[in-house]
Amino acid sequence: MGILLLAPDRDLRGLVQQLHRQAPDLALYLWPQTQPHPDIDFALCWNPPAGVIEQFSSLKAVTSLGAGVDALLDPAVVPSHLPIGRISGPELALDMARWLIAQITSHWLQLDQFRQQQIDKDCRTWAPTEAPLIGLLGIATIGASCARQFQSLGLRVEGWNRSGHGPSQVPMHLGAQGLHDLAARADYLICLLPLTNSTRGILDRSLFKAMRPGSVLINVGRGQHLVEADLLTALDAGQPALAILDVFQQEPLPTGHPFWSHPRVRVSPHCAAISQDEEVARLLLDSYRRVQAGELPLGAIDRQAGY
Amino acid sequence: MGILLLAPDRDLRGLVQQLHRQAPDLALYLWPQTQPHPDIDFALCWNPPAGVIEQFSSLKAVTSLGAGVDALLDPAVVPSHLPIGRISGPELALDMARWLIAQITSHWLQLDQFRQQQIDKDCRTWAPTEAPLIGLLGIATIGASCARQFQSLGLRVEGWNRSGHGPSQVPMHLGAQGLHDLAARADYLICLLPLTNSTRGILDRSLFKAMRPGSVLINVGRGQHLVEADLLTALDAGQPALAILDVFQQEPLPTGHPFWSHPRVRVSPHCAAISQDEEVARLLLDSYRRVQAGELPLGAIDRQAGY
Repeated sequence: MGILLLAPDRDLRGLVQQLHRQAPDLALYLWPQTQPHPDIDFALCWNPPAGVIEQFSSLKAVTSLGAGVDALLDPAVVPSHLPIGRISGPELALDMARWLIAQITSHWLQLDQFRQQQIDKDCRTWAPTEAPLIGLLGIATIGASCARQFQSLGLRVEGWNRSGHGPSQVPMHLGAQGLHDLAARADYLICLLPLTNSTRGILDRSLFKAMRPGSVLINVGRGQHLVEADLLTALDAGQPALAILDVFQQEPLPTGHPFWSHPRVRVSPHCAAISQDEEVARLLLDSYRRVQAGELPLGAIDRQAGY
Repeated sequence: MGILLLAPDRDLRGLVQQLHRQAPDLALYLWPQTQPHPDIDFALCWNPPAGVIEQFSSLKAVTSLGAGVDALLDPAVVPSHLPIGRISGPELALDMARWLIAQITSHWLQLDQFRQQQIDKDCRTWAPTEAPLIGLLGIATIGASCARQFQSLGLRVEGWNRSGHGPSQVPMHLGAQGLHDLAARADYLICLLPLTNSTRGILDRSLFKAMRPGSVLINVGRGQHLVEADLLTALDAGQPALAILDVFQQEPLPTGHPFWSHPRVRVSPHCAAISQDEEVARLLLDSYRRVQAGELPLGAIDRQAGY
């Protein structure tokens, strides 16, 4: 028995090392070096090409290497009979929270303004504005962890998702009206949504019109959540005043894309939260044990809902 | 009965408003408009000139407007028989923690590097280094609050102070050897010490020699903790590699000072944590009630120890 590692373009050496350390006897099969083999009963996937997984007919389940599963929902990628899990642990959530806190606190406390004052030899002192309100679009495991960290720092948090249910300490908004209500309140609006048919393109001109003048949009969900042309128009109107984008319709972001040189866009190369090998190995082994015991993989998703 | 507000060069309008709101009947006396008056039994001070407080012979106690009391220790400033308190509440500690977290996380997660990559249209992605170790010199109320916030974000914290005692979750160092041991371990070394005869000039060449190559010094204590000439030499040697300074020997920082244009120094105008009027008013009234009841003012200090 063993696990197929199916993650083209991704350097898996650190993960393989961790898996050998944590489970010395486990057989690992790397794609594309490995041909279908009856011993392979579980697969770890990241952007797998269509048509590959169905060749491994002994698979009992697959799991995404990260929190997002949108790349696995097409039955041509993962045949419909296979359960899909995901690897998303507390370390990944903490990485995301820290990245967001770095972005938000450095913007809110105007560290750039200190830099400018230093250049100008300007000693004026000033107190920060009131603690900002952070709007979280999507508030599952990672979102709830971020919300706790934000609140611990005295930042206000409100959330929005499909169910309207979130952590007990987070006021929630619901539905199309709720989405606009939250956009109208938030100083920082963060997209942490799963990519589904109902969230694709959700960051669009109607949402931007509802946002507060001077507010900041942060997309750490998927590039397909954002209507990029609408954002460019909205930035000219100052709603939002700044967009911090870690994900894009096309990745890596094409060289000629206007985001690169836009003064009110900050881009980063899809690295707000990068799965750490030690945690991925640990959760993958846990998930594999469940599958071998006839259970669903860790973080099993509802293919209908798409998350 | 009433309170003297003795804070030259400080805009007290917001605080006076808060005091009127929280205690409408309380008599407030602003210096220098006010002459000594037998009704004045408590004073709020920030950098009071020598010789003023002794003229107000009906005072029972004084309190510092902020956490630092070094400006009040000289008996020519506050006569020896008067107890000295301080106003340092959880909001002030939270402000300090947020400012430090903004500085540390934006540096650790290399937000500047993203800016440079954006200018270069460079899509290389990378994971952050291991969570840094933060060394806290001084770990009283504000330090302990910062330590909790750092640890909640998964950052490692160790402390140093005169007693070697700190919060239960923080490994502590003690004495001259302990100071150098902590400097040799910390990625970020933060000075939050009170200014006393034994801490004046503690950030000096011998400490810098002990620091890790590439590490960062942050001074949010007092300017007099730092031997500024020693730091300039040490920065050339890369230990520390960067200094983030909010306080200076002379404030405001003189226009010709080399820190302004040094590429490895970031200056800010003594604003890492600014007392907020609402909290100062609340704690001042609490302290005043204690003094009227014959007790010591809030946060009463040991004049011998200097904190």
